[in-house]
Amino acid sequence: MNQKAVALISGGMDSAVAAALTKEQGKQIYAISFDYGQRHRIELDAAKKVAARLEAIEHKIVRVELEALGGSALTDRTQIRKNGLAPEIPATYVPARNIVFLAIALAWAETIQAGTIVIGANAVDFSGYPDCRQEFMEAFQKTAETGTKAGKQGRAPMIYAPLMNMKKAEIVKQGMRLGVDFGITTSCYDPEPKGKPCGKCDACRLRAKGFAEANCKDPLSR
Amino acid sequence: MNQKAVALISGGMDSAVAAALTKEQGKQIYAISFDYGQRHRIELDAAKKVAARLEAIEHKIVRVELEALGGSALTDRTQIRKNGLAPEIPATYVPARNIVFLAIALAWAETIQAGTIVIGANAVDFSGYPDCRQEFMEAFQKTAETGTKAGKQGRAPMIYAPLMNMKKAEIVKQGMRLGVDFGITTSCYDPEPKGKPCGKCDACRLRAKGFAEANCKDPLSR
Repeated sequence: MNQKAVALISGGMDSAVAAALTKEQGKQIYAISFDYGQRHRIELDAAKKVAARLEAIEHKIVRVELEALGGSALTDRTQIRKNGLAPEIPATYVPARNIVFLAIALAWAETIQAGTIVIGANAVDFSGYPDCRQEFMEAFQKTAETGTKAGKQGRAPMIYAPLMNMKKAEIVKQGMRLGVDFGITTSCYDPEPKGKPCGKCDACRLRAKGFAEANCKDPLSR
Repeated sequence: MNQKAVALISGGMDSAVAAALTKEQGKQIYAISFDYGQRHRIELDAAKKVAARLEAIEHKIVRVELEALGGSALTDRTQIRKNGLAPEIPATYVPARNIVFLAIALAWAETIQAGTIVIGANAVDFSGYPDCRQEFMEAFQKTAETGTKAGKQGRAPMIYAPLMNMKKAEIVKQGMRLGVDFGITTSCYDPEPKGKPCGKCDACRLRAKGFAEANCKDPLSR
């Protein structure tokens, strides 16, 4: 059984917990993050700290110029929603982002012959992004199986989304159990210049809800 | 019916013909090419000329740092095969390349609400790449339908691969019929400094075979 796992690390808490769960299973972590023109660049610094804590064998930060395509509040100047969570897909949705990230992770996984790609996608307490759902993961799995040399040889990496059906509070509890340092992670879509979370965007609200329901204190909270 | 089509343009002949077939159907072409660390950078110049000839509404050249991941003779110093076509997947295979390119094209298509993404993939006279087969296209279609906001709203772009079942000679004939200028396209994996094709790599051999079988003269041939 192949013990290499490519872990998508965003700098947020979900991907840190998903990678820690994978490491707990004895896998070696190959961390990958993306410089995609996000305006909250502070997340790449957080990703580096998370990868170091996971004792990643390697950490690639790959440039992909999604901001050239427009279409998202995370890569352009569109206003970020701060008036609370709502059912519609928000302006912070980056078109096809997880498809792009998984595709590049797959390219690396195929190169280093990793058996697993782990992603912190979560379909329960989430912001309404379509690319965080189980049916998408299954479709991407099939894409990896049919569209790669590894797949043709029957050894496509498995797309592993261990947080898929967890509530945010459960993610916090799993992270606590595994010793994830939530103090080095960042979730805010629109942090203040020194990285202080705004406390009002969807990501801050979801994070606060998770810690509250888990009955834990967020090390980032003031 | 949405008339915008995002066309993957590599600078080679297949993508030029696929886009021309799409334009013939009355679609507006939005060309996209990738700067992925390919060593035959001359293809981006060819892509610009092809996009101009297609009267593309826009042409995006998107940076994606695949060379950071290694694994291919097209992005590193591995020797390119020049001793003839063979059944195995060659060293010029770039891991998951079409998955990455389609994913980024999908991000743009979603942003501009294009109804079609056209790719010059061909499963008949090809180099043995897994990501050029119909079953891969279908899997990616499902990924686009499940993993995007557009898909969730029932309007995922259609992945269109009109050359899929054509022989190379048929592609040449279609191009001739549509007035594609093959003289501005480039196919060689390892061109000489001024862009002259090597005549020996898989891409040169396939191209020569196509023109010969179509009984046409390649404007690039000496």
